[in-house]
Amino acid sequence: MDDGSRTARWERRLGPPLGAASLLYLASYAVRVLAPGLPGPARDLCLAVTAATWTLFVVDYTVRWRLSGQGLRFVRRNWLDSLVVLLPLLRPVRIVRVYDALRERRQGHPVMSLQARVILYASMSVGLLGFAAALVVYQHEHTVPGASIRTFGDSLWWAASTLSTVGYGDAVPVTVVGRVVAVALMGCGVALLGAVTGSFSSWLMQRFARGDDTGPPRN
Amino acid sequence: MDDGSRTARWERRLGPPLGAASLLYLASYAVRVLAPGLPGPARDLCLAVTAATWTLFVVDYTVRWRLSGQGLRFVRRNWLDSLVVLLPLLRPVRIVRVYDALRERRQGHPVMSLQARVILYASMSVGLLGFAAALVVYQHEHTVPGASIRTFGDSLWWAASTLSTVGYGDAVPVTVVGRVVAVALMGCGVALLGAVTGSFSSWLMQRFARGDDTGPPRN
Amino acid sequence: MDDGSRTARWERRLGPPLGAASLLYLASYAVRVLAPGLPGPARDLCLAVTAATWTLFVVDYTVRWRLSGQGLRFVRRNWLDSLVVLLPLLRPVRIVRVYDALRERRQGHPVMSLQARVILYASMSVGLLGFAAALVVYQHEHTVPGASIRTFGDSLWWAASTLSTVGYGDAVPVTVVGRVVAVALMGCGVALLGAVTGSFSSWLMQRFARGDDTGPPRN
Amino acid sequence: MDDGSRTARWERRLGPPLGAASLLYLASYAVRVLAPGLPGPARDLCLAVTAATWTLFVVDYTVRWRLSGQGLRFVRRNWLDSLVVLLPLLRPVRIVRVYDALRERRQGHPVMSLQARVILYASMSVGLLGFAAALVVYQHEHTVPGASIRTFGDSLWWAASTLSTVGYGDAVPVTVVGRVVAVALMGCGVALLGAVTGSFSSWLMQRFARGDDTGPPRN
Repeated sequence: MDDGSRTARWERRLGPPLGAASLLYLASYAVRVLAPGLPGPARDLCLAVTAATWTLFVVDYTVRWRLSGQGLRFVRRNWLDSLVVLLPLLRPVRIVRVYDALRERRQGHPVMSLQARVILYASMSVGLLGFAAALVVYQHEHTVPGASIRTFGDSLWWAASTLSTVGYGDAVPVTVVGRVVAVALMGCGVALLGAVTGSFSSWLMQRFARGDDTGPPRN
Repeated sequence: MDDGSRTARWERRLGPPLGAASLLYLASYAVRVLAPGLPGPARDLCLAVTAATWTLFVVDYTVRWRLSGQGLRFVRRNWLDSLVVLLPLLRPVRIVRVYDALRERRQGHPVMSLQARVILYASMSVGLLGFAAALVVYQHEHTVPGASIRTFGDSLWWAASTLSTVGYGDAVPVTVVGRVVAVALMGCGVALLGAVTGSFSSWLMQRFARGDDTGPPRN
Repeated sequence: MDDGSRTARWERRLGPPLGAASLLYLASYAVRVLAPGLPGPARDLCLAVTAATWTLFVVDYTVRWRLSGQGLRFVRRNWLDSLVVLLPLLRPVRIVRVYDALRERRQGHPVMSLQARVILYASMSVGLLGFAAALVVYQHEHTVPGASIRTFGDSLWWAASTLSTVGYGDAVPVTVVGRVVAVALMGCGVALLGAVTGSFSSWLMQRFARGDDTGPPRN
Repeated sequence: MDDGSRTARWERRLGPPLGAASLLYLASYAVRVLAPGLPGPARDLCLAVTAATWTLFVVDYTVRWRLSGQGLRFVRRNWLDSLVVLLPLLRPVRIVRVYDALRERRQGHPVMSLQARVILYASMSVGLLGFAAALVVYQHEHTVPGASIRTFGDSLWWAASTLSTVGYGDAVPVTVVGRVVAVALMGCGVALLGAVTGSFSSWLMQRFARGDDTGPPRN
């Protein structure tokens, strides 16, 4: 209980600064990938920011591990967090939760219906993941001979067509790293479809339930 | 309350004429894009209709803003309407609501089940959005060297394959404007899938609920 | 009431023979398309079967129209039947209903859960529609210069990739007729996804409802 | 009843060893396909393992048929098992059930919510089916002139883009066997989408039902 509350306090305090750090990480990573012609000092600054924020994530993970007092079970139970420590580009997705918690605290109660929150979460996560994936794929593909992803615009275009499961195929990764990222992004696309569809479906069901059980339809 | 009822009256009165105006806007825009060889006066007429209807939308938006007495919050709350003022090609989608309201008024009650209305709304909106997107993409793509969308037929074909998330990739936009429109259309496609699926799902659930709770299945 | 019961008797009696006729129509149409090198008499026989079965559908539609005593409203209310008279290739889909009615009559009660029936209906309809669409597209595409659908196998492959919304794009229609058929097939694909997803979703919901309301979970 | 319980005992006892055998089958099949340059004895060993495990499946099927005492009805009722005897590459999917049963026995109760199990089942099945399909397609495609699937990596990439219904089309089967496998995989992809979406949807519905009926929302 004590440990649980200390973990909770730690997360409440450090949520917002770590969210900001994860955006910083994404930004500095993006600058390094997209602006290779940067002057030396600016490049070094970016690298320093990337390294510092990553270190911050590792420290946060370690502290929460110690606070939990769970040993190796912690790694398995929080496998998503463990993965994020290795792949900090996934980290900005957590900012969605922070953003929602902040809004809730300001208003004293959840400000949106569950469905609206699911759709908002899904869209924001998918946007951030798509951007991160586009960065990684661009970095690994744009210099490969025979690649169809040559500019960052191509990469964003590919990410959008993958996440919506449209998949035109005019821009596709050809390297192994690019394809592994693509398969992960396809999984996100399927989950996005599931979230949007499920929200629609439960929203419709709710309207029927309300209309049938508690009085005349209110729409 | 007073303002609310004045807004409601304004919307009830002006809904049908504004719906007609939005179709006029779409038609005059389409003629200008699809018939570049029109004689001068006909072209000017089209341009005039486009401009006049757009002005109408701006006036409508401004009046509703004033009637609401909400200041800048109005812009945020009605962000869809605010967007439509900037991109009037999205406006015809509102005609779906007008059409439904007209039918309902004539019959005195909603004439369709909620699911049928969701599917009808989704199909009509998606048809109108697909047509508008095909117009814009055709306009920006068909003269670009290396483009695969050369005729308006190609553009409609591309819009259909995008909205259904099939995405053959034999006709795809290559310009930035075309790709931005395409990403928006992909979002519509995902939402369409969600609406169709959600309707099916809730319709099935409803049949079970009726059969299980209130007696033997009635189908 | 009387007219209604006469219509019902007509449909019960003529359902199975008309179902057989629609399969005959599909078969004779397929033979004409797929075996152009047939000797003259066999070709004429096929044409005769096609024409005879189509005539049968028109007669059936006319009789039901007369029996209904509804005038032009009948055409609008039974718009699907009206469409089928014009496009008899859609007719075999009705055989799914006949098949189900026959099974039910033999057993005295519905033999499957609603979800299983939805999935069976959707799969059989989609299979028949995909086959009919592949026939039409093959007929209109395989002689066109620059076409990517050259054999009936290509056409079936294209139909499968369209119905599942995968859409590889290695075989796509290029003629106007082919593309119109393709857009209709995309709509079927979206509906198929909706039916499968909705069935899954309502099946899961049902299991929860049973487990929560009437005792311990029974799975 | 007696026969039923003997069948149940047979299945409980032989479930885990047969699951292991099915993985062995898959592994030996994979080695034969992916390492054609293997020395003779190793190749023979693989072939022997493949043959032995297949024989095991046939024996298991025959015993269960005899125990059921049902005659030909058994074949129809257990059509999935009958199919698996002919296509043992589908067999590893059953290991998902074994894995779940093992976990449940160790814990004394189901360890996951129904939705989590559906998603886990769907992901594991889809992973195994995708791997098996990639093997078969690679085996039949990589030596065909004009094929776009040249390496096993291409084949896995194609399987992932098919299962998620993205369908880029940069790697597609061109042989008849490859396309038949692909159509089956498309069906799996549609079912996967349905399972993910349905789980999301019913999870959302459940949260609403709990929040509305039995007290304040518990999230």
